[in-house]
Amino acid sequence: MATIKDVAKHSGVSVATVSRVLNGKGYVHEDTRKKVERSIQQLEYSPNEVARSLYKKESRLIGLLLPDITNPFFPQLARGVEDEIQRNGYHLLSGNSDEKTEKEIAYIQTFMQHNVVGLISASNHVARDYYNGIEIPKVFLDRCEEGLYCVYSDGFEGGRMAAEEILKRGSRNITLLKGPANVKPAQERFQGALDILASSSVDFHVVNTPSFSFEYAKERAYELFSTYPDSDGIIASNDITAAAVLHEALRLGKKIPEEVQIIGYDDIPQSSLLFPALSTIRQPTYDMGVAAAKMLLQKIRKQSVVEQHVKMPVTFMERNTTRKVK
Amino acid sequence: MATIKDVAKHSGVSVATVSRVLNGKGYVHEDTRKKVERSIQQLEYSPNEVARSLYKKESRLIGLLLPDITNPFFPQLARGVEDEIQRNGYHLLSGNSDEKTEKEIAYIQTFMQHNVVGLISASNHVARDYYNGIEIPKVFLDRCEEGLYCVYSDGFEGGRMAAEEILKRGSRNITLLKGPANVKPAQERFQGALDILASSSVDFHVVNTPSFSFEYAKERAYELFSTYPDSDGIIASNDITAAAVLHEALRLGKKIPEEVQIIGYDDIPQSSLLFPALSTIRQPTYDMGVAAAKMLLQKIRKQSVVEQHVKMPVTFMERNTTRKVK
Repeated sequence: MATIKDVAKHSGVSVATVSRVLNGKGYVHEDTRKKVERSIQQLEYSPNEVARSLYKKESRLIGLLLPDITNPFFPQLARGVEDEIQRNGYHLLSGNSDEKTEKEIAYIQTFMQHNVVGLISASNHVARDYYNGIEIPKVFLDRCEEGLYCVYSDGFEGGRMAAEEILKRGSRNITLLKGPANVKPAQERFQGALDILASSSVDFHVVNTPSFSFEYAKERAYELFSTYPDSDGIIASNDITAAAVLHEALRLGKKIPEEVQIIGYDDIPQSSLLFPALSTIRQPTYDMGVAAAKMLLQKIRKQSVVEQHVKMPVTFMERNTTRKVK
Repeated sequence: MATIKDVAKHSGVSVATVSRVLNGKGYVHEDTRKKVERSIQQLEYSPNEVARSLYKKESRLIGLLLPDITNPFFPQLARGVEDEIQRNGYHLLSGNSDEKTEKEIAYIQTFMQHNVVGLISASNHVARDYYNGIEIPKVFLDRCEEGLYCVYSDGFEGGRMAAEEILKRGSRNITLLKGPANVKPAQERFQGALDILASSSVDFHVVNTPSFSFEYAKERAYELFSTYPDSDGIIASNDITAAAVLHEALRLGKKIPEEVQIIGYDDIPQSSLLFPALSTIRQPTYDMGVAAAKMLLQKIRKQSVVEQHVKMPVTFMERNTTRKVK
């Protein structure tokens, strides 16, 4: 009786390659696949059922790649994904890339080694080609590009909304925080706000904020008010940054929102507990996670996916760091 | 040549049981194990190497059970675990139990099906017997009991510390929030604070707070000040609850810390961004995750574990919701 080793020897490939062909998972070049399939026929190889069932057992795993779970936006996103796949009998293998290419690739390789049947990535540092080489269903979350399957919220619109709301409420010397250059959703909201401010008649400053970490946000908020003491409106790149700006403004004795208005982005749960409670642009974070999981499950089950790009709406959460419209 | 099915038939057990015996993983009764081993010898069965290597591939997975990743304390804990096991070539399979027995058991079963080589649990709703039946290395994180391997911080001491610091700073009408009854670490810190208050000469109230959710914390903070308007010191059961109390106190126009002092618990990253910045009892959260991962890896590698209970120190983070000691 032929073994998988015999097939590998006969077709001149590794056992792992034969295994990938048998299970229809992982990348195998088309020519190699044909060669292996011919050897299987010629040797009348019948794959070991235990090995197959071991593989099958694994096929309830889904890989989830996040940039950093300690930013409260991502645990919300992850809960949406987890709750939905759990309801469907799947489970999460997860990792944090810290937006670093090396860690991102290492995690994707790990996911593949553990035979995940699908991949959701909310990280974006890797060359498009790398993902193209992965032959399992994949959905991108919180970021999108032409040709990919993705769920995200409308960053440009969110940025425009933030700028429009702060202008409408009378700020005339606005500081716009740019957010990390390598984080695509941050750059979209930045561009949206920039468009509105550039076509308005108010003065504004753009301040680079290359990190979303708590420590960094604190330092940057301190610098902001030293450099632009006359700012009467601040559009932050996310709620953590906004919280740091609010803290610093209050420390300096500024009246919020009378003297300075602040708008955040994300609406993490903590934002309504700040005092004054933070006005912010709300992403439907948990629902985005659910939607990405639903799309991935459709792809895994080879059901048709009606919308390849699901763009979810953002809303302005009017709280107390912005003034009321007269 | 005998197959694994022949062995299963010969010994009168399932293929899955034979598989568990071969791989030395998962629960198999000692009598069954002996029966299977005899059959293997008699039939001269030699396990399929691919099946073995498939199993071996899986043996880099570690299961992590958390109560709820949307409470910012747990992502910090999870990052500590993840970073440490990642450095050692292992990966996380994770799940949120929401402190519900049913979900907890379902996740543990899933972990076992995916052949995790170790388990870290920061959830505690399951009968001790259930965990005893799991024959892989396991470490409990953030909670502990006699006979278990665990990493936690000193909750009684943390609770005592919170009460002592608020007394030392002059509060004389203290409200102590009890925290969820089913969350053991919350009850330890509650007991610690209660001991100190009970042996002091000040008036105090105990208020039940059966949930740590953001929404609930907001409602409860509102009720707190309606019921006990004269409270001049509040010991919260965690930082989320403390943030809600602070928000409500400021909304009512109370001067913090002059009229009301507030102490939180955990020191989540957000707490230093509140205004006034929250005084709190700090747990070394990330380091606790790292320590639990190290202990588990020692057990997986069959190295001796010197300390079965690692109790880590807590510290008082003096910020601006408490007065300075004269």
